[in-house]
Amino acid sequence: MQPTDAQHLEFLAAARAEAEAGLAEGGIPIGSVIVHEGRIIGRGHNRRVQRGSAILHAEMDALENAGRQPAAVYRDCTLYTTLSPCAMCSGAIVLYGIRRVVVGEHRSFMGEEDWLRSRGVAIRLADDAACVALMNRFMRERPELWNEDIGR
Amino acid sequence: MQPTDAQHLEFLAAARAEAEAGLAEGGIPIGSVIVHEGRIIGRGHNRRVQRGSAILHAEMDALENAGRQPAAVYRDCTLYTTLSPCAMCSGAIVLYGIRRVVVGEHRSFMGEEDWLRSRGVAIRLADDAACVALMNRFMRERPELWNEDIGR
Repeated sequence: MQPTDAQHLEFLAAARAEAEAGLAEGGIPIGSVIVHEGRIIGRGHNRRVQRGSAILHAEMDALENAGRQPAAVYRDCTLYTTLSPCAMCSGAIVLYGIRRVVVGEHRSFMGEEDWLRSRGVAIRLADDAACVALMNRFMRERPELWNEDIGR
Repeated sequence: MQPTDAQHLEFLAAARAEAEAGLAEGGIPIGSVIVHEGRIIGRGHNRRVQRGSAILHAEMDALENAGRQPAAVYRDCTLYTTLSPCAMCSGAIVLYGIRRVVVGEHRSFMGEEDWLRSRGVAIRLADDAACVALMNRFMRERPELWNEDIGR
């Protein structure tokens, strides 16, 4: 079951709220939610700062918080993320066969969208101005932290 | 600094010891270590069962246990894993620019080795009989758990 346009906006707003929660904790402002049958089953945000984590990007945190799910559930999920997913998060999407990803923006960082498409993942770009503003401010204020998060 | 042949055997044995520790805990027998300048800086094993985790594959656990590292460290690391890395773990390797991966075996499961090579990662296959035996027995005894771990 694919979300409607109104649901897309609602779920992207939920991912953005996660990003803002991360920022309020002193963290990297990227958020994600995973939706199954019109319901959020996992939400998360980047926890590099908060937990000293190298792997808890927003999408990974949302996947972890969704818990162990059978393959049939993942295949019918839509993953929302405020920022274009990096190689690690894209790899997790490919591993679990998540077929739809809604990307808040890819102006500040272009992830592995081409690779995802080549693996059959449908990507919908929201080009959301609030997501862009969050990242642009963070990248300007904390460039060293941002570079660490993407292995640069 | 690239490990010597003797070091390769030693570090692969450390990864195998992690896999065996995971099995003893009732978990999925896959282990990994990350080596920098001749020293293990992170070790881990699959924690799906132990922590109810969807993201703590062995390589991810080893990365997490290595802690936050600067890009320059990752680029000079060798990652050892008892089993060919899946899309998620391969994505993490690509994200952090780890340039060398030693794979215990890929007979029981072939991960994203072609993609890793296309991204400049050097892969060394050990084709280790003990790693194969660990996985074959596990896959025979717990096929549903194994399928869950690889999103099938």
